Amino acid sequence: MQSRQVPELPPFDNPALADRVQQALDRKTKPTGSLGRLEALALQLALIQGVEQPQLLAPQMVVFAADHGLAAQGVSAYPQAVTAQMVLNFLAGGAAVSVLAEQHGLAMTVVDAGVAQALLPHPRLQDRKMALGTADASAGPAMTFAQRDAALAAGADVVRGLPGNVVLLGEMGIANTSAAALLMSRLTGLPLAQCVGRGTGLDDAGLARKMAVLERTLARHAHAQTAEAALAAFGGFEIAMMAGAAMQAAAQRRVIVVDGFISTSAVLVAQALQAGVVKACVFAHRSDEQGHARLLAHLGAQPLLDLGLRLGEGSGAALAWPLLVSACRILKDMASFESAGVSDRSA
Amino acid sequence: MQSRQVPELPPFDNPALADRVQQALDRKTKPTGSLGRLEALALQLALIQGVEQPQLLAPQMVVFAADHGLAAQGVSAYPQAVTAQMVLNFLAGGAAVSVLAEQHGLAMTVVDAGVAQALLPHPRLQDRKMALGTADASAGPAMTFAQRDAALAAGADVVRGLPGNVVLLGEMGIANTSAAALLMSRLTGLPLAQCVGRGTGLDDAGLARKMAVLERTLARHAHAQTAEAALAAFGGFEIAMMAGAAMQAAAQRRVIVVDGFISTSAVLVAQALQAGVVKACVFAHRSDEQGHARLLAHLGAQPLLDLGLRLGEGSGAALAWPLLVSACRILKDMASFESAGVSDRSA
Repeated sequence: MQSRQVPELPPFDNPALADRVQQALDRKTKPTGSLGRLEALALQLALIQGVEQPQLLAPQMVVFAADHGLAAQGVSAYPQAVTAQMVLNFLAGGAAVSVLAEQHGLAMTVVDAGVAQALLPHPRLQDRKMALGTADASAGPAMTFAQRDAALAAGADVVRGLPGNVVLLGEMGIANTSAAALLMSRLTGLPLAQCVGRGTGLDDAGLARKMAVLERTLARHAHAQTAEAALAAFGGFEIAMMAGAAMQAAAQRRVIVVDGFISTSAVLVAQALQAGVVKACVFAHRSDEQGHARLLAHLGAQPLLDLGLRLGEGSGAALAWPLLVSACRILKDMASFESAGVSDRSA
Repeated sequence: MQSRQVPELPPFDNPALADRVQQALDRKTKPTGSLGRLEALALQLALIQGVEQPQLLAPQMVVFAADHGLAAQGVSAYPQAVTAQMVLNFLAGGAAVSVLAEQHGLAMTVVDAGVAQALLPHPRLQDRKMALGTADASAGPAMTFAQRDAALAAGADVVRGLPGNVVLLGEMGIANTSAAALLMSRLTGLPLAQCVGRGTGLDDAGLARKMAVLERTLARHAHAQTAEAALAAFGGFEIAMMAGAAMQAAAQRRVIVVDGFISTSAVLVAQALQAGVVKACVFAHRSDEQGHARLLAHLGAQPLLDLGLRLGEGSGAALAWPLLVSACRILKDMASFESAGVSDRSA
């Protein structure tokens, strides 16, 4: 990818800062370590921002939507038209992610990365349409190298244009668990059977058909071994844009809240293109989609929630959001043993 | 317990209502079941309130604090004075639970159930002091039967006096993981070693000492086999009041958000005294305190969070709170397939 600029990452590792933050946590009025993962999260947020007291400003939920040519092969329980319908539902406020973003005061932007229908303008819709869906990956590359690079750049551009210092990455795209599974298998080396799940709810026969299509598709692109090549081969536009968004966000020390299986597959791509991106990522939850747990493990990621979600959209990221706020508040607002006059452990 | 009135519970089981709520969830614009535990939570909240669209009004965080005579046996890493110091910290807003309650707009009440020091009046402190701590359970009963009944009644009375339809149960009391472990072992029949943990952070030697003290204490009260008898034998006042609070809340169809190991031990007692109380309980999290996972399993409870917390106070209940709000919003605000014009699964 000589033609594309990969933004440089700031030095997230900072042992001196980490020590200071850990000491601040240990002085709070609680047994050492007793806030568990919340303390680890506070430390991570401090390191992402490079400060002792991280602050979360104007968090942005960004839902990237696109269609997949592979949907024609019957890999999803839902018709392709649902992608565009759900975009309208996001904008109208009726989708799960809309309701949850509203609950938590998260600004929401929907990005048309390549929905297979023309969409009317809307104040919260960004038109970044690459094409009317990707090409069918079972028959050829999902996208050209030029489209891939443009999609990566568009994702970065979306982030650059947003205020605040947090992006929550969500997505919509009928058949996109297929693209994610293909990327996962190729980039992790895990057998496809460990990467493919029921998506929106395939039955056993549907799952068998999906497996067969994906096996064929994976074999067809045996040459596409790098992250760049695999992304073009398998798609999709929303995944490429999320990967670009993640790299840009990390470069700007923005906190990235990663939703489910598809968003994590985008981070897998981003991490392959720019090692270190995962350090800026907070993984919101472990999805019920069967490849997700393994994908998280591959990335060394420990998700915050485990609620059996398998909806995507950014719904899990929105649900985890208050935990990030709590982590910052613990650091900022909790009293220390000294300030509160509380006795520390007996000698 | 002929002398004490156990409030009658409403019929939480309502298959017709459950069907209607499940149908409403299934019509929402999402694959069936894709919001996982959030859907089960929405259903539970509807059944607790006996309505199709549950609403959470004026949620009340109630932190019950008391001391334990058993602390004199060196079963905690912290000195007993910390109980009173932390009460002041709760009231001053510097404790974890204070910070998290503030984040989520939860009203907070601290109940002095039996702190071993006189406490000055404070608008958010309720004086329900039963004694200056329980008696040392290793030497005799922690409390008299009269104290036990008065504490149960006081817990119910606290709930009756609070507005809203949700109580979040938190606690503070140096040595109260010991009382909880004793109650758990006696009422579940599990060996003490499976119920006892490091509490606020005992080292191996401290844990061994705690185990020895608790083995002795359990044996000393071999006759205390019922929940009533065990509660008086082992204490503590805060656990008795939480049990009374839980029974009262359930009787009034209030949602009970249960925090960690100690709060769950109070629910274990309440459930023994009034079968069905657990149906009104939302279990916030699985604590790192080692007996908690088994105690939850014994109660058939599936907690919402698993964040390695082991602080108590109500901190885990506060962290889980936004998930309850989300569950209600999903039912109330999400569009249906029909209302949003979204296609359901392909035939």
